[in-house]
Order: sequence, then structure tokens, then C-alpha cells
Amino acid sequence: MNMLELIDKKKRNIALTEEEIQYMVTNYTNDEIPDYQMSSMLMAILINGMSKEETSWLTKAMVDSGDVIDLSSIEGFKVDKHSTGGIGDKISLLVAPILASLNIPVAKMSGRGLGITGGTVDKLESIDGFHVELSSEQFIQQVNKHKIAIVGQSGNLTPADKKLYALRDVTGTVDSIPLIAASIMSKKIASGADGIVLDVKCGKGAFMKDLAHASELAETMIGIGESLGRKVSVVITDMNQPLGHNIGNKLEVAESHDFLQNYQDSEQGLLDVTVAISSKMYQLATGVSDVEAKEKVLETLSSGAALTKFKEFIVAQGGDASDIVAKNTKHEIEVKSNHDGFVQLIDAEMIGKASLFVGAGRLTKADVLDFDSGIKLVSLTGQRVKKGDTLAVLYSNKDEIEASIQLIEEAYIITDVEPAKKNSILKIM
Amino acid sequence: MNMLELIDKKKRNIALTEEEIQYMVTNYTNDEIPDYQMSSMLMAILINGMSKEETSWLTKAMVDSGDVIDLSSIEGFKVDKHSTGGIGDKISLLVAPILASLNIPVAKMSGRGLGITGGTVDKLESIDGFHVELSSEQFIQQVNKHKIAIVGQSGNLTPADKKLYALRDVTGTVDSIPLIAASIMSKKIASGADGIVLDVKCGKGAFMKDLAHASELAETMIGIGESLGRKVSVVITDMNQPLGHNIGNKLEVAESHDFLQNYQDSEQGLLDVTVAISSKMYQLATGVSDVEAKEKVLETLSSGAALTKFKEFIVAQGGDASDIVAKNTKHEIEVKSNHDGFVQLIDAEMIGKASLFVGAGRLTKADVLDFDSGIKLVSLTGQRVKKGDTLAVLYSNKDEIEASIQLIEEAYIITDVEPAKKNSILKIM
Repeated sequence: MNMLELIDKKKRNIALTEEEIQYMVTNYTNDEIPDYQMSSMLMAILINGMSKEETSWLTKAMVDSGDVIDLSSIEGFKVDKHSTGGIGDKISLLVAPILASLNIPVAKMSGRGLGITGGTVDKLESIDGFHVELSSEQFIQQVNKHKIAIVGQSGNLTPADKKLYALRDVTGTVDSIPLIAASIMSKKIASGADGIVLDVKCGKGAFMKDLAHASELAETMIGIGESLGRKVSVVITDMNQPLGHNIGNKLEVAESHDFLQNYQDSEQGLLDVTVAISSKMYQLATGVSDVEAKEKVLETLSSGAALTKFKEFIVAQGGDASDIVAKNTKHEIEVKSNHDGFVQLIDAEMIGKASLFVGAGRLTKADVLDFDSGIKLVSLTGQRVKKGDTLAVLYSNKDEIEASIQLIEEAYIITDVEPAKKNSILKIM
Repeated sequence: MNMLELIDKKKRNIALTEEEIQYMVTNYTNDEIPDYQMSSMLMAILINGMSKEETSWLTKAMVDSGDVIDLSSIEGFKVDKHSTGGIGDKISLLVAPILASLNIPVAKMSGRGLGITGGTVDKLESIDGFHVELSSEQFIQQVNKHKIAIVGQSGNLTPADKKLYALRDVTGTVDSIPLIAASIMSKKIASGADGIVLDVKCGKGAFMKDLAHASELAETMIGIGESLGRKVSVVITDMNQPLGHNIGNKLEVAESHDFLQNYQDSEQGLLDVTVAISSKMYQLATGVSDVEAKEKVLETLSSGAALTKFKEFIVAQGGDASDIVAKNTKHEIEVKSNHDGFVQLIDAEMIGKASLFVGAGRLTKADVLDFDSGIKLVSLTGQRVKKGDTLAVLYSNKDEIEASIQLIEEAYIITDVEPAKKNSILKIM
């Protein structure tokens, strides 16, 4: 077997075998297949696609390329969630305590942010004293005791995925549904989950621009789950505007706290997505009906049990549970509307960039975050605004803020026509 | 403009512009675009194809990547030929003196052999004293005086093609008609020809396995010629068996000499292809009719003028015109038939390998050739043979000849049924 034969098959649209995919992934990870061969293979996969079986074999080979976390000493059905990346997406901070308060163990590994999307681990670290590095024993002990732990990625999980992703990024081979699906699923399976709820973002600010593509990605990931013995559900959610009001690490912790304290006052999209995803996770873990799962979630929110669990979780990982509000920043600029009208759209990508430029995100891995900086969206999509009304507030400790202010102004599309009400949940699979 | 944008267009089957192709070729040649990006682009081109315009722009960019030979100080219409590579293919040794004897200038650059296909330059060097390195002035002077010169490639012709070809070879992107066509045509155009006759081999021993693909390649190259102001004709020839009797450098010089001395006794395929290609070349240069061109070619063969020119050419380049017979080799093995029957087929690839193994060809560029070694096919396709009849003679100065003998035995397919007579010329375009 050699890589040229495999490239030759795939370019002629002949399916690869399990052994061939294993050979390719193993040898690429070991630097025995050069980048220039893997990139022509990736392009052949992007154009000709992969069958359901091939995609599952690819996922399995990527899981097998590195360590696999063993969560078997945690009692109960371990359910994880993953989001394809959004602006202002603090859903993990919400669903983890909700599930834990319902006695479902959440043993979660999360990433750091890069570019315009934030990372759960960064958000948690904005809490004074919170640490995200636990040993395997500490991690498992904490989940058994508190039903919840969120740590940074450790160990050598899916090195094949890391190497392939870096190559895809520079060879125009990112936007392939089988490759995206295998990448996401391999990481979640290597992290030890029994069940996975995937939040597939759809729309202008997301990788999947329309529902058809988002559904195809969802079906592919569900298929991988079936093949590899994991329960998978997908919630396709709208990403035509940021999620909730706040963007920025500590600002998102604060919004999460407020949500758990009084969910009925929270932004509708954030509420809908949180309830949909935590219900699905609860359902996967327990097998109850849709309706019952949703009732349980709303109950634990109403009773304050989820908020209590959130604080308990912060304390368990060394954090100060009272440190949940962003400190004042040097600049707090109210960005005002120049027109009367309705907010048609808030461009999530532009808001992400505006937030990145004031230090809430990293442009390179080496950048240091300013936890307190960020943006609060005061006026949301569908809202009527008058000239001079505050659209958003920019929080910055940096002095160079003109570019961010301009981005926020441009992100708000204000027109005379009241936009049709949009549902945040596009599809549940 | 950046390479990722171009990859993105081509993978979505959107045609590239002339500027984009120029950018890609220039920057790849200058090592500013990495191999892993070019290989994903090449795969996208292989699968999605290239328009006629794109293919011409690619060819032009490859020509522009290096030196272009200026033949303007040679009087007359300069016509070149190219073969896509065959076993026993000594056509260049024949058509060059035929054309020169008809007063058409032949200023030819040729390559060395690698793998199972031989190179004209190697064959010429097997003649005692012959040298293939001439300065530009010597080259042009010789053509003006003798109407013929054949030299090795010098200067920095089409460096883009060299780099791209090396990458295609290791990334499964060789078999793309636009890429093959641009590669061939760029070299010929950079070599300064006004007109080009292409010998596209078709069949088991060739790259184009069937007439449909060979015709597509031919049309693509004719299209490039039209766009870039060169007259192009194509002769599609059968490569289901080697061309002529002899394979091996000096053995092919000898067969060429014998052909020019007495073409009527030569192998039919070799005669048909030589006449077809030299007639087309003559036609391109003079504009006469098919019939007249063929008459002229047969006339110069019959009169002995072509043979005289062949010897004059050898002497002009320092060679000994009487040194045209291979020396005796240590081993001369007659490979005999094990059956009675008809020769259905002689597998050209196997014969090429058998000849390579005894030193007539190079496995790597560093290998030294044994000019006198090779194979003489005694029995040809269609011939009736009896058990014990000699099929071929293997000439070798090496002692390890078992593999070659076995390859020759296996190359001969002998059956009870007399095969239908095959025409060597499949199509002229």
C-alpha cells in the first residue's frame, strides 16, 4: 500500500477501505507521508466526498492517532456538547451547571479562543483564582463529587486532527463536510463522551451559511456517532447575530451568572439555545421525552439549583464565586445610532473583530487576553431605535479603539422596515 | 491576490483568469507558493479540468517562467516534433534528416532517457565522437549550413514545468490532460519552434490508453497552438507494441541507418509512423498537400538524400558516421518460443523494463548507460511462430539477465488465432 495508490483511487472517486484510511492517517501523523501528498488527497476528498463508512473510518483513525480519555470511573452516562463556533457563545457555561444540577455528570474538556471566537477555558480563567489544569485523578474525583468539571485540553488527543487541520487551513480544504465532521467527532470521542450534543451554527456569522449544508453536516456527524457507538443529537442554531448581549470573557461570565439567576429576563436567543441543548443532553443521558427533558431544565433554572451548582463548580476549581462582574475599563464608549429605524441585523463577524481588537480575543496564540474588555450589545435585532440611542457599549483598556467603534457601527444594519421575527432554533435532529 | 483564493475558485470549478494563472506559476517557480498549496491546486485542476483559455494561459506562463530560444536567425520555417514517449521510438533520428534533406531546417533540442523510455540525445551519444553540447552560435550556424542540429537541453527552459512535473509525479496529478498538454507545449514553444508535430502514443504501452483520451489531448494541444500562434498537427499512433525491431541506444542508431538506407525493408509500423510524421512536418513548413508531402518524403528516402543527410549530420556534430553498429556484448541470448501460434501482442512496457535492466536505460539520473545493450525483436506482432523459433535476442554486458529474459518471454503473447492486422496510424489531426 502506498499513498499514491490511495490518491489515485480517491481522485477517480473510488471509496477507500478502512485499512487504507488507517494507513494514511497513521503515516501522515508520523510524518511519513509528506504534506504535499496529503494536500492533494484532501482536495480529492473535498471535491469527490467521502461515503458514510469512509467518514467513520477517518474519524476512528483520528481518534486512534493519540490518547483516548477514559471516563469509565465516572458513574453515569457522560454527555458532552460542542459548538461549531459563535460570537458571544457562552452556552457551555450554562448547560454544564444545568446538567450537573440535574445529576448528569459533565466531564468537559474545552479549548481556548483564537481569532474572533472565544474559548470556554479563557472565560472561566477570567474568574479570580479559577484554574483549568486538573490532574486526571482530580478531574474524575471532582466530577464524581460535584458532577461537573471543565478543564483545558491535556494529553495528546487526536494529533492527526491537529496536523490535518493545520494543513487544511493553508490548502483550501477546510470546507469539506466529511473532514469537518471527522475533526469535530474525533475530538469529542477521544475526550471520552458517551453522548454528544452538537450545536451547529448556521448563517452569516457561521461556517455553514445555509440550513441545507448545516443539515448535511449534522447528518454526517450523527452517522459517525451511529458507527462508533456514541449517541449524537444536533441542534442547528441561527448565527445571524451574536448570542446574548455580552461578548468578552468576564462579560460573558457575568451574563451567564445573570442568566442562571433569572433566566426569564435573558435574551431570547440565548435562552432558546440553552434550553434546547441542555434538554437534548438530558434526553441523551436519561432517555426521557422531549417535553419532560425541557420541564426538568426549566425547573432546575427556576429553583436556583443550576445557579447554586454554577457557584459550587467555580469554588471546586479554586475560583471566587463572588467575582463574576467585569471590572471597570479605562474606556467605556457608548456607540449610538445615527438613524431612526429597526435593527435588521447585527453582523456577528464584525462584532467579533471589534471585540478581538480591544483585547477580548487572541489574534495569535501568544497574545495575552484582557478579561474585562469586550462589548455589550444594548440594542438587539428587531428592536426599534431612535437616532442617538445607544446601540452597544465598548469596554477597553487600550487607547486604540477607533477601528472597533467603526466596526460596531457598521455591524448594526438599521432600516425602516421591521424585520420578521427569527427563530434561534432552526432544526433539532 | 493570494493562492488560497485561487484554490478556492478552482475547487468550486470557477475558471481562473490569465493574471491569476500567471501569478500562480511565477510565484510557485520562485518558491513563494509552497508545494502543499500547489498540490491541492493541481488536484482541483485534475478533477475539475481547465478551459481552453486557462490551458493556453498556463502554457504561456510556463514558457515565460524561463528562457525562450530565439531561432529567428535561422532561415525558413522551423518545425519540431515531440513524442509522448514510446519503447523503441527512434522516429526523431529518422524525421530530422528526412526534413533537412528536403531543405526544411530542424533545430532540435532533445532529452535524455529516464525509466523505460529512451532519449534521442543518449542514442546520438552512442555514436563514437558525437557531442550534443553546442553553443547557441554553433547550433544556429550548423542549422543554417546543414539544415539540421540536435542538442541536449541547455539554458533554463520552462523551470515552472520542471518544478510542476516533479510535484505532479509524487502527488497523483500526472494524468490530467490540460496539465500534460501545457507541459509538452510549453517546452516546444520555449525551444523556439514555429510549427510542431506531436506524436501522441496510444495503447497499452502508452500514457493515453484509448483513442478518445488521445484525441482529447491532441485537441487540447492544437488549441494551445492556435492561441499562442504556433502551427500544430497531431499524429495518434499505436503503442500496443514497441516501434521497429530494436530497443537500446546503439541498436536503434543501427536500425535508423538501415531504415534510411533501405526503408522498404523496414518494419511496417516504423515506416508508417516515420512517413506520417515527416509528411506532416513538411506540410506545416511548406503548405503543400498531404499527397505531395508524402511523395517528397518517399522521394528523399528512395534517392538516398536522407541517408546522406544523416551521415552529414553525424559528422557535423563530431561523430564517426561509420560507427553505426552496436559492438558485440558479453551475452547474446536468443529467447525462444515455447508454443506454436501467432504473436498476438508484444507488451511494450515489459520490453522496456527488460531493456532497462540490462543497462540500456536509466533507473535514476545518475545511472551510466551501456550503449550496446538492448533487445532485438525478431518475431513481431501478427507473425506465425513455431516452438523453438527465436522471438527476440537480448544483448547484455551484465551477468544478471534472468529477469530480462523472463520479461521478454512474458511480453510475447502467443495464441492460436491470427490477430487482425493493426494500423499503426490511428488518427491524423
